[in-house]
Amino acid sequence: MHVLVIGAAGMVGRKLVEKIAATPGILGGEIMRLTLADAFAPQVPASLAPIAKTLTVDLAAPGTAAMLIEGRPDIIIHLAAIVSGEAEADFDKGYAVNLDGTRMLFEAIRQEGLREPYLPRLVFASSIAVFGAPFHDVIEEEFFTTPLTSYGTQKAITELLLADYSRRGIFDGVGIRLPTICIRPGTPNKAASGFFSNILREPLSGKQAVLPVSEDVRHWFASPRSAVGFFVHAATMETGPIGPRRNLTMPGLSALVGEEIEALRRVAGNKAVTLIRREPDAGIAKIVAGWPTNFDASRAEGLGFKAETTFDEIIRIHIEDELGGRMA
Amino acid sequence: MHVLVIGAAGMVGRKLVEKIAATPGILGGEIMRLTLADAFAPQVPASLAPIAKTLTVDLAAPGTAAMLIEGRPDIIIHLAAIVSGEAEADFDKGYAVNLDGTRMLFEAIRQEGLREPYLPRLVFASSIAVFGAPFHDVIEEEFFTTPLTSYGTQKAITELLLADYSRRGIFDGVGIRLPTICIRPGTPNKAASGFFSNILREPLSGKQAVLPVSEDVRHWFASPRSAVGFFVHAATMETGPIGPRRNLTMPGLSALVGEEIEALRRVAGNKAVTLIRREPDAGIAKIVAGWPTNFDASRAEGLGFKAETTFDEIIRIHIEDELGGRMA
Repeated sequence: MHVLVIGAAGMVGRKLVEKIAATPGILGGEIMRLTLADAFAPQVPASLAPIAKTLTVDLAAPGTAAMLIEGRPDIIIHLAAIVSGEAEADFDKGYAVNLDGTRMLFEAIRQEGLREPYLPRLVFASSIAVFGAPFHDVIEEEFFTTPLTSYGTQKAITELLLADYSRRGIFDGVGIRLPTICIRPGTPNKAASGFFSNILREPLSGKQAVLPVSEDVRHWFASPRSAVGFFVHAATMETGPIGPRRNLTMPGLSALVGEEIEALRRVAGNKAVTLIRREPDAGIAKIVAGWPTNFDASRAEGLGFKAETTFDEIIRIHIEDELGGRMA
Repeated sequence: MHVLVIGAAGMVGRKLVEKIAATPGILGGEIMRLTLADAFAPQVPASLAPIAKTLTVDLAAPGTAAMLIEGRPDIIIHLAAIVSGEAEADFDKGYAVNLDGTRMLFEAIRQEGLREPYLPRLVFASSIAVFGAPFHDVIEEEFFTTPLTSYGTQKAITELLLADYSRRGIFDGVGIRLPTICIRPGTPNKAASGFFSNILREPLSGKQAVLPVSEDVRHWFASPRSAVGFFVHAATMETGPIGPRRNLTMPGLSALVGEEIEALRRVAGNKAVTLIRREPDAGIAKIVAGWPTNFDASRAEGLGFKAETTFDEIIRIHIEDELGGRMA
């Protein structure tokens, strides 16, 4: 089996590759070739070195897509993207990579299939950014996609292409809309959503964190471990039961910031909670007010996708996976 | 004012141009230039000859979009498309014209605006083909777009682009999803939907027509006159009240085939109805079963769009507009 991961150097991509290294056979067969592509050189776990090849590529450049597909990968996991803020700031770059680059990938698969029959599984990382406010309290499975960012527009367009290419038998596609990933490892960044992770990750390491919104802000979460699980399941599941509506809202946990904090208190104690400093930021509060808070993800759940059901679980996963099981 | 109509040689395009000829000022100002573009040479009503220029162009060809925009039209009405059946049969052609051609048009507007501030009104002819079965009995305003044809996919993608380009202030866009136009003038064609018009148009001219489905088939209709009215209204309305959800399901009449026939009986008598010959066609019945039957179009109605409310009206409009007020 030949597996191609595009976006293998990103946070979720790296964790997915580590999971493949730790669990041979997790993608349903023996992997003979693993191709890891990204705009930055992906890392290769030692155990995968004999089968792995890394490619540092610009997905939007002519020829990249054909090069990625010429080895006829059986499973293609595509999670490369220009992120939301950059796609909004740089119109051309966002459309070039997120829309055109992905479409060139789809077209390269079609051209390969016209040459010789070919039907790879293709898993695409979409986003809840395909939805735009105003929302219902719980966003239904059949709610329309009216994104309010260019990033969300590019993801929604790719979802439509993925469904059409799958319907025509060009590839066997599954689009998965990821919740906000929490707890993101690493250091605090400038993303408006960063605080959802910061207020847990930093205190768990004995550091202070800033909370810029009120505790009654609600949002939609899954752990990095769940995100990896979504990709693995989408890469290996039976796709017949999905039908033609190939894009799925992944399950997640709808929780208040106050619930995050109470979970932190239960898992790590009062002292950890005192490390959270309230610094209200009207700008961030306004951005966050435009985000969805809760979804009906029963389709994906019925198809076997699983996420956490409590923030205690999300915190424990971070302690296990990032802190070697120990808190500061 | 400079007005550009792309797709001016098609049925609705021609009627729109005739309406402009008959009602100077209908687009909200004096038209100093009228550019009529299509893949086939558009006709020019005599009264418009002094201001009209026709262009026979391939929208997908490099340079076409820039040429269309170089005159900086104030109003752009884009109703050119590769139709559903052809876009399904010819994958490349459908995507090249319906998606890439339209995107090149949008990009040409953006480039013109980068050169010198420019914010034209752009009206785009979308379609209820953006929706895919299974449907609810009445399709809600917030129902998702999961098309089951490449044509519907291309229209849904263009809707997303239109909303994003409008949000960014590149143009002032309105996407209008047309119902099935009935009664289509002309002669019976091979479109699966043709019978909806044939069973009225042909008997009104004393000719036989074939009905391939049962009388309890329900569908969603508006007259050609209403379609022209939708474009005129979308070209001239205040767009502020639309908000960022720029694509609107146009109002229509949800009616049974049996109701069409009863309206024909009321307007044209029993003799006309006897010209309808039942020839059940399982193939057509199956295609039609996948089509939507009824919509909530209250957003568009609230914004001033109007369609017929009875089939008697639709038939009378055909008699007035196509038959010079006389039946056979």
